[in-house]
Amino acid sequence: MSLEARPGMFITFEGGEGGGKSTQIRTLKTKLETLKHRVVMTREPGGTPEAEKIRRLLVDRAGGDWSSEAEMLLLFAARAMHVRDLIAPSLADGKTVLSDRFTDSTRAYQGYAGGVDLKLIEEIKQISIGALEPDITFILDLPAEVGLSRSNRRHEKGGTTETRFEDREIAFHEKLRQGFLDIAKTNPERCVVIDATQPIDAVADAIWDHLT
Amino acid sequence: MSLEARPGMFITFEGGEGGGKSTQIRTLKTKLETLKHRVVMTREPGGTPEAEKIRRLLVDRAGGDWSSEAEMLLLFAARAMHVRDLIAPSLADGKTVLSDRFTDSTRAYQGYAGGVDLKLIEEIKQISIGALEPDITFILDLPAEVGLSRSNRRHEKGGTTETRFEDREIAFHEKLRQGFLDIAKTNPERCVVIDATQPIDAVADAIWDHLT
Repeated sequence: MSLEARPGMFITFEGGEGGGKSTQIRTLKTKLETLKHRVVMTREPGGTPEAEKIRRLLVDRAGGDWSSEAEMLLLFAARAMHVRDLIAPSLADGKTVLSDRFTDSTRAYQGYAGGVDLKLIEEIKQISIGALEPDITFILDLPAEVGLSRSNRRHEKGGTTETRFEDREIAFHEKLRQGFLDIAKTNPERCVVIDATQPIDAVADAIWDHLT
Repeated sequence: MSLEARPGMFITFEGGEGGGKSTQIRTLKTKLETLKHRVVMTREPGGTPEAEKIRRLLVDRAGGDWSSEAEMLLLFAARAMHVRDLIAPSLADGKTVLSDRFTDSTRAYQGYAGGVDLKLIEEIKQISIGALEPDITFILDLPAEVGLSRSNRRHEKGGTTETRFEDREIAFHEKLRQGFLDIAKTNPERCVVIDATQPIDAVADAIWDHLT
């Protein structure tokens, strides 16, 4: 695919914890901007004022014991707003949208790992955002233990307080990883699995090579 | 129906603004408790800590411009928690549950008045709470203008700050009313339309007569 020929590209980054998604998104944003692309960097859950409120409900777990089904509904409510108010208008305006997580995260976390029926997720997805899928999805893949230990190191340094999924047992994270790999296998036209155990620069090169 | 023969009854109160739902629920609770029923009084959106957080998202509209679809997803997320953690266990325990609003409000507000496809609402309902419907639903019916003027009087007295739907035009409230009446017509086995322009005591008597 030629980057020049396709403004309004929608690129998502997926994978478990500690895969370096946000670092890679920032690096790619810089590279694209050097090529004069107008880039919107966003994340899920979140991206609009309403969706960020939902993010806080889910991330700030104090007093909250959401079922996987309720989580899925909240995530799609946030996603409906995110698509309506940020993603769709940006793409229509010819901007490139880079999102840290999107529907695949709901498929992997609430579906493959959380036990919600995958067909139900597709039904709710259709109701919430219609047929919209990313043009390209980079899945930053690494073994659950590696991702978890990286992510825990980051928390010790105070980089984030979001530990809700990391507290879960390693089995959950393995299911998650297999979920993402299965999504990639089922959607080879848009999903690219990147080995995230490589050094950061090598991961960035792999992403860039694929795009150009 | 004999009240004695059916513990674990699920009774909901529906209708537009100003119909006196909360007054009637309190009155009915007192009467049922005199007959030794154990009664749980609850409301939607809300009823559990998680669902009350969603209520605040919807009621406190500052900076929030939710689409009808997103509202529907939020309401069902709240409802899934409400059913799982309060309604279902209370009914299983033989208690009578009185709820100020339930699924019919989503059908009327987001569906009939808000324009969300009614079939989609039923699909999401099935995913969120399965087949559960109330045993009896009292629809406190009154013309939109009467309900709105009653409800506005209450706000002037400082009784509540929830004005999100009341600010909308009268046409919305007429659609809402017709929605509730249509729901009643489609579900005659559980819905009872009560003329809420009557004095409070007469409404309470009508409800009690129907139950006994």
